[in-house]
Amino acid sequence: MSTPYDLSVVRSTNSPIYVTHDNTQLLRQLLTGFNSKRCMFIVDEQVAALHPWLSELLQAVFSDVVYAVVPSGETSKTVQEWTRLVDIALTNTLRRGTPVIAAGGGVTGDLAGFVASSVLRGLPLIHIPTTLLAMVDSSIGGKTGINHATGKNLIGAFYQPALVYADTRFLDTLPRKEWNCGLGEVLKYACIQDPSVFALLENTTLRENHQDMVYLVERCMKIKADMVMQDELENGVRAYLNFGHTFAHALEAHTRYRRFAHGEAVYVGLAAALWFASRLGAPVDPDRILGFRAAFNLQTRDLIPAIPSLVAAMYSDKKIRTGNLRLVLLNDWGEPVVQDVEDTRMVEQAWNFALENVHS
Amino acid sequence: MSTPYDLSVVRSTNSPIYVTHDNTQLLRQLLTGFNSKRCMFIVDEQVAALHPWLSELLQAVFSDVVYAVVPSGETSKTVQEWTRLVDIALTNTLRRGTPVIAAGGGVTGDLAGFVASSVLRGLPLIHIPTTLLAMVDSSIGGKTGINHATGKNLIGAFYQPALVYADTRFLDTLPRKEWNCGLGEVLKYACIQDPSVFALLENTTLRENHQDMVYLVERCMKIKADMVMQDELENGVRAYLNFGHTFAHALEAHTRYRRFAHGEAVYVGLAAALWFASRLGAPVDPDRILGFRAAFNLQTRDLIPAIPSLVAAMYSDKKIRTGNLRLVLLNDWGEPVVQDVEDTRMVEQAWNFALENVHS
Repeated sequence: MSTPYDLSVVRSTNSPIYVTHDNTQLLRQLLTGFNSKRCMFIVDEQVAALHPWLSELLQAVFSDVVYAVVPSGETSKTVQEWTRLVDIALTNTLRRGTPVIAAGGGVTGDLAGFVASSVLRGLPLIHIPTTLLAMVDSSIGGKTGINHATGKNLIGAFYQPALVYADTRFLDTLPRKEWNCGLGEVLKYACIQDPSVFALLENTTLRENHQDMVYLVERCMKIKADMVMQDELENGVRAYLNFGHTFAHALEAHTRYRRFAHGEAVYVGLAAALWFASRLGAPVDPDRILGFRAAFNLQTRDLIPAIPSLVAAMYSDKKIRTGNLRLVLLNDWGEPVVQDVEDTRMVEQAWNFALENVHS
Repeated sequence: MSTPYDLSVVRSTNSPIYVTHDNTQLLRQLLTGFNSKRCMFIVDEQVAALHPWLSELLQAVFSDVVYAVVPSGETSKTVQEWTRLVDIALTNTLRRGTPVIAAGGGVTGDLAGFVASSVLRGLPLIHIPTTLLAMVDSSIGGKTGINHATGKNLIGAFYQPALVYADTRFLDTLPRKEWNCGLGEVLKYACIQDPSVFALLENTTLRENHQDMVYLVERCMKIKADMVMQDELENGVRAYLNFGHTFAHALEAHTRYRRFAHGEAVYVGLAAALWFASRLGAPVDPDRILGFRAAFNLQTRDLIPAIPSLVAAMYSDKKIRTGNLRLVLLNDWGEPVVQDVEDTRMVEQAWNFALENVHS
């Protein structure tokens, strides 16, 4: 055959995203809309203990709930745990169209998302994110995945949820460290898209005000959703979401993922990236985020001697394909830009600024 | 939030499909186009032994070939084998953009496809189908998958290949039983889309004529590709590809996947479905496919007493969601139609016709 035959497949998925506070009536309605007698419910063990109403609600909507509890923590993102959940799904003979409901943080969502994507070539996935981080970040964008001995999130699929239901009621029970994990990403959105978010965060009674919390979560989810959507048209926009992350990944890898939560590492990375951007002339003052130093309460100065190792770790980040270090920086607040960086000395200085100044 | 925010993601994938005979120059060119120093080569053990030129060609194009041989046969479609291949991929630090080249039949393609879809959330997948069945069926449409204790292909993803290179040279070494596996699906295409294919197949020297073989494979690949594409717009067209398959799946399940190859079971299913369609008044004579009886050389009459079990097995097929038996039938040659069937008696008669008459 002289000319090839082109098979073009276009798949569009639509994920309605609801943000609300304590609206079980709405959740019940949404779940009923799936028109299924059965569901699979994959829930983080802590969420199951703290929020028994969720399981009760599912039992009221579905006549058959296939229940799977996932141990909290990153160690659940394994091939073994994925296999266990797939076994549960298939031995309970889930059918095409049976919804998989994932309630928990990023770990539960990433794991359950990969399960939903790979059972019967895809079951409808419903995210009920219960942490700030999962609401504003991991439940949006369709990234699912588990870890491998050689690195994090190396096994997984792109798979869009059929529904995201974010209820800020879950945040009332969120420990401070978990809150900070989300705060790192929220600050990132303030930097790359909407600096007005800073003012909201600076309000010390934010967490007690349901309306403001719903607004904050909604704003961040929209920013991420818009960037994910736009990326399908304009390749690369999604990269902006990595602002601060090349630094953060290096810090996490260097400290073997034990010392800093992801959001904490992101906070350090934001300081470094902002310093870098301002040094290149952008009118962004890194002090703007240092005000959150007390909330994060991190010790970082002892890492200053490790800066050369941290820089080396940035080069082995999986997002680097060309050998050059490519960073997301800012031209101004809300104006991200991707730039190749050749001056390693300045990268070291950025680390120095961040490790020195985010220290509490 | 009163109204939900809709995240719409549109992903389009384009899979060029090449059909040719013994055109290593073209294959080399296509592979060079991936602009990668490295590739992962997942190859069926028999193909590796019979076609050493393929591995040599890859070594000429890529400076680093990560090589994985897959044992022939359905038993390779397991979580264990998938895990083994994912481990090989990740311990050899494949990067985004590194192509995964799958050479073999449906087993290799389905397994390697799921590996490619799930490593780093998707690596470019190149199918080099080496059996008639893989060329005309499994390499087209993006279905990947492995088996589970509870059933076949229950774990997997929809994942479109970046390239399909079908070289009829591989068919020269194809055993007769393997040829028949493909022939079942080819006859299906003749029924549901293009009865002129019957004449090609009736030519006893077909397999010696490279031009006719390329034409035949190309015709069938186009029929499947068109139906897959159309299905994205008009939900359900893809179901036509199941013509004869509800019967075939029941026959395979009843005989525990040991006695009949898939294509052989499809052949029996075609006879049953054609009888059913003609009994409902369609001007299609099931004799048209009985002429291939000698080629298939099947023994089926001993199964006539098992007809009630075969009918029961049709109801437990995973494609039945409503409880009704839904069959793909024909209004005429090339005019498939999906119909709910209530008359179990006629289903039994269809089985009786097929088991009685395809017997060699």
